Amino acid sequence: MKRIGILTSGGDAPGMNAAVRAVARKALDSGLEVFGINYGYAGLVAGDIFQMTSATVADKINRGGTFLYSARYPEFAQVEGQLKGIEQLEKFGIEALVVIGGDGSYHGALRLTEHGYNAIGLPGTIDNDVPYTDFTIGFDSACRTAIDAIDKIRDTASSHQRVFIVNVMGRNCGDIAMWAGVASGADAIVIPERDYDMQEIADNLKQGLANGKSHGIVVLAEGVMSAEKFKDELLKYGDFDARANTLGHMMRGGSPTTQDRVLATKLGVHAVELLLDGKGGLAVGIENNKITSHSMLELFEEKHHGDMSLYDMNKVLAK
Amino acid sequence: MKRIGILTSGGDAPGMNAAVRAVARKALDSGLEVFGINYGYAGLVAGDIFQMTSATVADKINRGGTFLYSARYPEFAQVEGQLKGIEQLEKFGIEALVVIGGDGSYHGALRLTEHGYNAIGLPGTIDNDVPYTDFTIGFDSACRTAIDAIDKIRDTASSHQRVFIVNVMGRNCGDIAMWAGVASGADAIVIPERDYDMQEIADNLKQGLANGKSHGIVVLAEGVMSAEKFKDELLKYGDFDARANTLGHMMRGGSPTTQDRVLATKLGVHAVELLLDGKGGLAVGIENNKITSHSMLELFEEKHHGDMSLYDMNKVLAK
Amino acid sequence: MKRIGILTSGGDAPGMNAAVRAVARKALDSGLEVFGINYGYAGLVAGDIFQMTSATVADKINRGGTFLYSARYPEFAQVEGQLKGIEQLEKFGIEALVVIGGDGSYHGALRLTEHGYNAIGLPGTIDNDVPYTDFTIGFDSACRTAIDAIDKIRDTASSHQRVFIVNVMGRNCGDIAMWAGVASGADAIVIPERDYDMQEIADNLKQGLANGKSHGIVVLAEGVMSAEKFKDELLKYGDFDARANTLGHMMRGGSPTTQDRVLATKLGVHAVELLLDGKGGLAVGIENNKITSHSMLELFEEKHHGDMSLYDMNKVLAK
Amino acid sequence: MKRIGILTSGGDAPGMNAAVRAVARKALDSGLEVFGINYGYAGLVAGDIFQMTSATVADKINRGGTFLYSARYPEFAQVEGQLKGIEQLEKFGIEALVVIGGDGSYHGALRLTEHGYNAIGLPGTIDNDVPYTDFTIGFDSACRTAIDAIDKIRDTASSHQRVFIVNVMGRNCGDIAMWAGVASGADAIVIPERDYDMQEIADNLKQGLANGKSHGIVVLAEGVMSAEKFKDELLKYGDFDARANTLGHMMRGGSPTTQDRVLATKLGVHAVELLLDGKGGLAVGIENNKITSHSMLELFEEKHHGDMSLYDMNKVLAK
Repeated sequence: MKRIGILTSGGDAPGMNAAVRAVARKALDSGLEVFGINYGYAGLVAGDIFQMTSATVADKINRGGTFLYSARYPEFAQVEGQLKGIEQLEKFGIEALVVIGGDGSYHGALRLTEHGYNAIGLPGTIDNDVPYTDFTIGFDSACRTAIDAIDKIRDTASSHQRVFIVNVMGRNCGDIAMWAGVASGADAIVIPERDYDMQEIADNLKQGLANGKSHGIVVLAEGVMSAEKFKDELLKYGDFDARANTLGHMMRGGSPTTQDRVLATKLGVHAVELLLDGKGGLAVGIENNKITSHSMLELFEEKHHGDMSLYDMNKVLAK
Repeated sequence: MKRIGILTSGGDAPGMNAAVRAVARKALDSGLEVFGINYGYAGLVAGDIFQMTSATVADKINRGGTFLYSARYPEFAQVEGQLKGIEQLEKFGIEALVVIGGDGSYHGALRLTEHGYNAIGLPGTIDNDVPYTDFTIGFDSACRTAIDAIDKIRDTASSHQRVFIVNVMGRNCGDIAMWAGVASGADAIVIPERDYDMQEIADNLKQGLANGKSHGIVVLAEGVMSAEKFKDELLKYGDFDARANTLGHMMRGGSPTTQDRVLATKLGVHAVELLLDGKGGLAVGIENNKITSHSMLELFEEKHHGDMSLYDMNKVLAK
Repeated sequence: MKRIGILTSGGDAPGMNAAVRAVARKALDSGLEVFGINYGYAGLVAGDIFQMTSATVADKINRGGTFLYSARYPEFAQVEGQLKGIEQLEKFGIEALVVIGGDGSYHGALRLTEHGYNAIGLPGTIDNDVPYTDFTIGFDSACRTAIDAIDKIRDTASSHQRVFIVNVMGRNCGDIAMWAGVASGADAIVIPERDYDMQEIADNLKQGLANGKSHGIVVLAEGVMSAEKFKDELLKYGDFDARANTLGHMMRGGSPTTQDRVLATKLGVHAVELLLDGKGGLAVGIENNKITSHSMLELFEEKHHGDMSLYDMNKVLAK
Repeated sequence: MKRIGILTSGGDAPGMNAAVRAVARKALDSGLEVFGINYGYAGLVAGDIFQMTSATVADKINRGGTFLYSARYPEFAQVEGQLKGIEQLEKFGIEALVVIGGDGSYHGALRLTEHGYNAIGLPGTIDNDVPYTDFTIGFDSACRTAIDAIDKIRDTASSHQRVFIVNVMGRNCGDIAMWAGVASGADAIVIPERDYDMQEIADNLKQGLANGKSHGIVVLAEGVMSAEKFKDELLKYGDFDARANTLGHMMRGGSPTTQDRVLATKLGVHAVELLLDGKGGLAVGIENNKITSHSMLELFEEKHHGDMSLYDMNKVLAK
């Protein structure tokens, strides 16, 4: 193996650039040539590919977003799309790939592996919804942005003794809501994985304000419902001065945290090691603080398991 | 004059605590006794009043929100409410007041002055919509929060070559949108003070992306319309990958910036100097980098004049 | 057991307040009475003790430092000091304790346990030098502060193509230097655990600048030597425009990160669970992402093992 | 005039990139061609010059440092150096220049103007030591970094009831120390412009701690002496637990604040307007919130006047 390619796919996440840097530097140090592929699978098919040097990834470790750009490209699910991609790989002499993105982007990686081009997947998404990894690249940074925002909202909530519903990202996975909720001392956390009792939430908020709490904070995963809708529902169960806020896309941006930079670096290095070992169709991750890898086939049959102890703990601590 | 009171009123703003600290410390140093009034005019009427020492305001200068709390209290517009407030002032021996809030809260201060209790107003609001001051306490901090968020949104916008509509606070005043827009290199700024041409905005965004810009950012003052609605309108004039984000209440919170802490300190000290001079019914501000004061009567007939040169400048620089 | 006490000891660390909150709220929820002890063992001996309610720990989770204060108190190593402390425990009816601090503060906790007052230790120190825990409370926040500072230094280093020696905290333990070094893409990491070759470092920096790198960053653990001294040494081996910076005590402060808030919360809850189980003389920690506990006696015979793979990885990635 | 050049000179400052962007975009919009000159006057003489498009300055407004690099180049004080620079200007057809830097870098600009190449100076330095401007580009950002660091130091100072001496940049000018000192509620500010009485400072710190203050903070401009030396001196006058910290070069970096981005933008636009008017040998600035310009000859005979009211105010408020 002489040449590898790197692409980022799906929603961008802080730390993707740190991962690209680690892959590139490790590969160059191992004597490989490295090619960056812009715009994910779309760029692969379009041949938007360029050779990277050590300097290409200088001063990228601390940048948010992905300097390789990302794009949706459902056409890569079809064999036709894959063959066009392979045409480009052949043209550039690229023999193997690292794909950084959510587990949705692993499907393309697995197909390429099956076609004889080893591909390794790195979990890059803020949502933390990838199986076989305790943390995805970008998750800690998204939590950082969420708690910074909630700390600010708390200032104004306290000044007015208000209740705030704060909608954080997470369509199917409540991890951001749970971590940000526990970390900001939320009065309630509402996530897709757990039922909730609106009357209980309203009663707790009322009780808190009656006990002298100067604010009430509900952290709500976007997959459950909108902040506005939740607020309207909540007001049927209690009479508060309540406001709805949606943090939105700023959660995807910002300079990555220490955890995300270090995790991205470790996973990127390991991905290259696996390729050097002639392996493909694997996704790397961190489990119980160890870097691991699993077959993508296996991964597609598994679900991410969040740390639900946080949810239960918060119920106790919010009192 | 032996005793003064301080209250914060209206929406909270970063720097209010720094202002309260400055008023308290300056007054104590001048030999006055100082009383904090919780929850604005509502707390005044309710007698929620306590004596402050130098220690009361220690470690407050860097805190967001207002530790004196704030509340709406329309009843203070009525003479009856005012007389109840005066009853409390007499009970506590408070002879004069500093009121920190938007110009809406100056009405109560003027009434108290007319009743013989000198009151000085400090412009504390993120919106920068108070006449006779170039900057209100909290404005710079709100801009800081806005540009931090927009910088993050830019990361994700660049990764996907997307257009983002970012709604910032400002109901009647586009100052936050203008400053945050210029400071974040927005492609368009949309404010209540200026008409806009949706076709022109769409064309510019299209042109920018065609020219190789990796993103498009529209900074929209909330007084114009919602980000969602603007996005829907915009999409009638051009075909983008566009997203709507509303920064919301986090803009009111956070540790105040240098500018806000220093401005709050200067204005707070000057307010006490005016009271010591036996003056009332005045609002203090900063104009052309000098601390000034104006009669509230005069102020109610004036409008805030934003620095519209920023709006025009941005049109040139966004190209 | 009806009453427990909490104290913080040794150097303060971000997340100590989150730990105190978790201990207090969990204990209150379990029907215990909770007492805060100010100034660590010094305050215990002096009887600087007060009852805590749920409200005492409200709005503390996001504050840096320790609101229970900390102090050195070597006298507690003597039986006499311990007996004075026990006198106070008896006076307040406190039957068990949670001690948050470095492993130095565990000695007092073990002595109290031996005297019949169960005490559980929580690793609260930025240095990450406590055995049987992968991470201490405060470590991630200190790394955050370090990389924020190094990212800023990188801006000015790049503008002038300079080499910067950045001294970070860590007397015997290079963990902060390793994590912050990897996370900021340092050209070299110098730690007490590893020998270094000044000529090699100088050559690499020279090579980097020659290859077009716009800066050189050396992250140096304070235990090795001062930044000034290192710079002077380095300049004997190469001719750079080099500057020395020492981050110093700001690394101890600041709002804790998500990781530190969540870790502090989990450890605090577990400490109370252990006390409820009638256990003492144990230190809790996080190992391989699981909350664990070990006998303090056992802990005193063990060393902290940092993740040295980071050190080796950085040598490869810095090229 | 068809072609202008831009360079940054002297110590870098946050906002320099925003200024370069404004100059470039405004000039391009005015139909000019724009050339970036790397490494200040050194790069001018070396011909390290490249043509800029609108895209060159995209995504630069929020970056710290200067992407045009900076360098010292004392040789430009000699006519010989200037003539070499002019050779390059002729080679590239550059007829006029914008120079962003401290007032030291204005000398070269004035010489070029005298040689027939109009040059306009922009005050870019964190030190705020340039005459005829209330604020330099970078000053507010440096204050931001200082107060963020001091807020963190305050956390640890409060936890241990310690006194901290914090050395901030400012060789001849105490502006950063004054603004950061007032903004962080310092107990004492020590600057080159004012004498200080070590006994008085020690007494005030002692009194503060005795009165229940949980910390003491002295903000010290580097031009007075080092933090270490000040601490040693101070300890002769009082018995504290005192620590010395030097913020150092991180103060030069970081993303610029709103104020710096907007100021840089306004000044950059105005510089181009002056060049279009055929003017040179002028330095632009902001005075009493208005954009102004002054002859460099006049400027060299003037001193910067800091807002000393802050110094006096702080003495009152620290009590």
